[in-house]
Amino acid sequence: MKTSTAPVEYLFDSDVRRLLHPHLPASITDRVIMVEGKGCRLVDSNGRSYLDATGGLWLAQIGHGREEMAEVAAAQMRKLEYFTCFWDFSNDQAIQLAERLAALAPPQIEQVFFTSGGSEGNDAAIKTARFFHYVKGEPKRTWILSRRTAYHGLAYGGGTATGYDDLAEGQGPHLPHVTHLTPPHPYRSSLFVGQDPTDFLVNELEDRIREIGPDNIAAMIGEPIMGVGGMVVPPADYWPRVQQVLRRHGILLIADEVVTAFGRTGSWFASPDVGMEPDIIVTAKGLTSGYIPLGAVLVSDRIGNAVRGFGDGYPVGYTYSGHPVACAIALKNLEIIEHDGLLAAARRTGDFMYQLAAPLASELDIVGEVRHAGMGLAFELVTDSLTRQALPQPNGSIADVIREETGVIVRVSSPTNLVLSPPLVMTQEQAATAVTAVASVLRRARSDGGLA
Amino acid sequence: MKTSTAPVEYLFDSDVRRLLHPHLPASITDRVIMVEGKGCRLVDSNGRSYLDATGGLWLAQIGHGREEMAEVAAAQMRKLEYFTCFWDFSNDQAIQLAERLAALAPPQIEQVFFTSGGSEGNDAAIKTARFFHYVKGEPKRTWILSRRTAYHGLAYGGGTATGYDDLAEGQGPHLPHVTHLTPPHPYRSSLFVGQDPTDFLVNELEDRIREIGPDNIAAMIGEPIMGVGGMVVPPADYWPRVQQVLRRHGILLIADEVVTAFGRTGSWFASPDVGMEPDIIVTAKGLTSGYIPLGAVLVSDRIGNAVRGFGDGYPVGYTYSGHPVACAIALKNLEIIEHDGLLAAARRTGDFMYQLAAPLASELDIVGEVRHAGMGLAFELVTDSLTRQALPQPNGSIADVIREETGVIVRVSSPTNLVLSPPLVMTQEQAATAVTAVASVLRRARSDGGLA
Repeated sequence: MKTSTAPVEYLFDSDVRRLLHPHLPASITDRVIMVEGKGCRLVDSNGRSYLDATGGLWLAQIGHGREEMAEVAAAQMRKLEYFTCFWDFSNDQAIQLAERLAALAPPQIEQVFFTSGGSEGNDAAIKTARFFHYVKGEPKRTWILSRRTAYHGLAYGGGTATGYDDLAEGQGPHLPHVTHLTPPHPYRSSLFVGQDPTDFLVNELEDRIREIGPDNIAAMIGEPIMGVGGMVVPPADYWPRVQQVLRRHGILLIADEVVTAFGRTGSWFASPDVGMEPDIIVTAKGLTSGYIPLGAVLVSDRIGNAVRGFGDGYPVGYTYSGHPVACAIALKNLEIIEHDGLLAAARRTGDFMYQLAAPLASELDIVGEVRHAGMGLAFELVTDSLTRQALPQPNGSIADVIREETGVIVRVSSPTNLVLSPPLVMTQEQAATAVTAVASVLRRARSDGGLA
Repeated sequence: MKTSTAPVEYLFDSDVRRLLHPHLPASITDRVIMVEGKGCRLVDSNGRSYLDATGGLWLAQIGHGREEMAEVAAAQMRKLEYFTCFWDFSNDQAIQLAERLAALAPPQIEQVFFTSGGSEGNDAAIKTARFFHYVKGEPKRTWILSRRTAYHGLAYGGGTATGYDDLAEGQGPHLPHVTHLTPPHPYRSSLFVGQDPTDFLVNELEDRIREIGPDNIAAMIGEPIMGVGGMVVPPADYWPRVQQVLRRHGILLIADEVVTAFGRTGSWFASPDVGMEPDIIVTAKGLTSGYIPLGAVLVSDRIGNAVRGFGDGYPVGYTYSGHPVACAIALKNLEIIEHDGLLAAARRTGDFMYQLAAPLASELDIVGEVRHAGMGLAFELVTDSLTRQALPQPNGSIADVIREETGVIVRVSSPTNLVLSPPLVMTQEQAATAVTAVASVLRRARSDGGLA
């Protein structure tokens, strides 16, 4: 039966009846319904308060519920809420944001295409790479190199590059000409059969290029640091050596910085820090701290001039591309990140969290490794440090237990990492609370994944 | 060289240097940079005022720059700007909007998945249809039936269903198992080789199903009325007969109502008006009138319960799914559409525009047909009414000439239709101005497409 807008007391029933949640088993009928957020604190519909150590999904850089953002959104909605950027139409906010992004981005980046998020952005990036080669007279360059445990969203293009079989199940056939390589995850040493990880990975890359044929490959797509994969920081020589191989074969490099850009790792962009010089950078999340959906695909002049110089111009378009309110919000967000010194804060507070967390790897056999980059922190959970088998979670996600017991929100990812990606404004006291909460539950975890 | 935020006088140069516009040939270096909007009026950076007869891209239902929307956005940003709806997390705005949409939607629709736009929605719809059959034990049902001149966005999934070769050029290979049928466009009578259009189309559909094998087909996707195709209203018996064939073969029906839903055609949803009973409805645009990016994929209980009942649950997820500010804005937008009687207004003003415009088809040989549904109006332009060949546009888009000469913004689409899709709040006086502006230029158009 259908009813009109539900009163608050029916929110739970209504959610279960009406709302399709990503990745929620039907057996789970409890919900945590958020109704308020301020800084790093969230409050649910039962009045319970939480410490947000995920930023939702790797965002909330500037913290929740900021007055300045509300004012900018309202002012821009009153002035011009929306007009299209298709064809020769434009708006002042989109232009100014494009200019700002070009100034912040690595030197080779000069042009911007706006999307409403990372999934749209990765689809656009793959189209852009293929179209670039087509325009340049190499229409056979269509293959995309990606990696297992990569995450590039769940639209059909980027979603095919995403490297998890379970996320792709039952939705195929997927985009053709996408292939997955081994992730640069040194802790998972068995992947490299005794070799130096980078040596192994570069050999594998060269073998794969040979198999497919270099003249058939458009681009490699990769996160500088794998986020969903569990804050996987590659060996320092990985990206420089990969980049060298790609260059030699005329293969473009797409950096998926949806998670990493705009401060998560303590820099505006993470790709230069790991030795990538990408032709295309995909961004979203931190661009607006999540206050409004927005993404940006950043490209070099070489790419941008080619794809807009053919026929009727760049062939990708989304309705909200260059949305004036979204762009105004992003400009304010970037201003706050800069003015409040949140890049330095991310490094400082991230290092502090890591110092607190790292000893758990020696203290607890089920913590195989603690990794971090800026305000991204991962605990790789294993049955024991020798076999490094993934820790099972027979009583549901360990993140749920931490939330229930301590009110600290963290996530389980990929599927054996416990990941923290808090707002960059988190205080040291809050950061300590978060790590302490995680430790209090991990200390009770047995090697079979049960809790003492 | 890189500079920081551009002063206003550099907006034009900055746009040309920095911004990738969809479908803009590189030879065009002029820009129309919008800076203000109120109701149906827009103002560009040169201070020129325009009458918006496109709503940007088929949206702006409630008109530009409304104070109520600014207030709702600001209030929700202060309260809770964002948290995720992945897993068991939710928020009160998303739930209430899901409830409202279920109440407005056709009776078979009961559940909602939120996206940030139509492209994400069509990708999700195709995944949902395939995954439904997979879960139901028919994993071979993967084919998607679409139509030429259909528009389902430009991400890789929906974009493959989109039926324009030029939009797909140089970006393939595209999603496998998508096939295109003939559009139900009676004016293009040569498509039907002398037969009754619906007879021809139903036969073609049955032939195609036979060729592919009914047990290999997941769904047919279609706009109730083709928007980008030129407001193509199908014969009254088209969708009922198509639906019958699909049902007989267990093939799902996806209605792409990104253009049509929320008042464009004078109804909340157009699919019931044309005899569709879809299993999945994709929406965006009018859902928020464009004030913030948001889309919703609406599904029946049969679909929703199946796709969330398997394994780890529904396998599609976008970061901003269920964004609290977007959902709050949508709730206010739907309230305004209802309170201000904009469905009736769309029918009334749309009919008025059509009455003014229709005589041009008999008056001018280059106007082959005038079509409309609510506040969507198309002039099909031809060299002459006998051969019905598409009118060339040797001097650039005729829409640009109309804009330059009269200040009225219309668009050329698909590629021989002149299309109007104004805000639903447009007055009769403004509607008359728009049609008069179009007529003034069309009356000077010669059969070679030049202007006298």
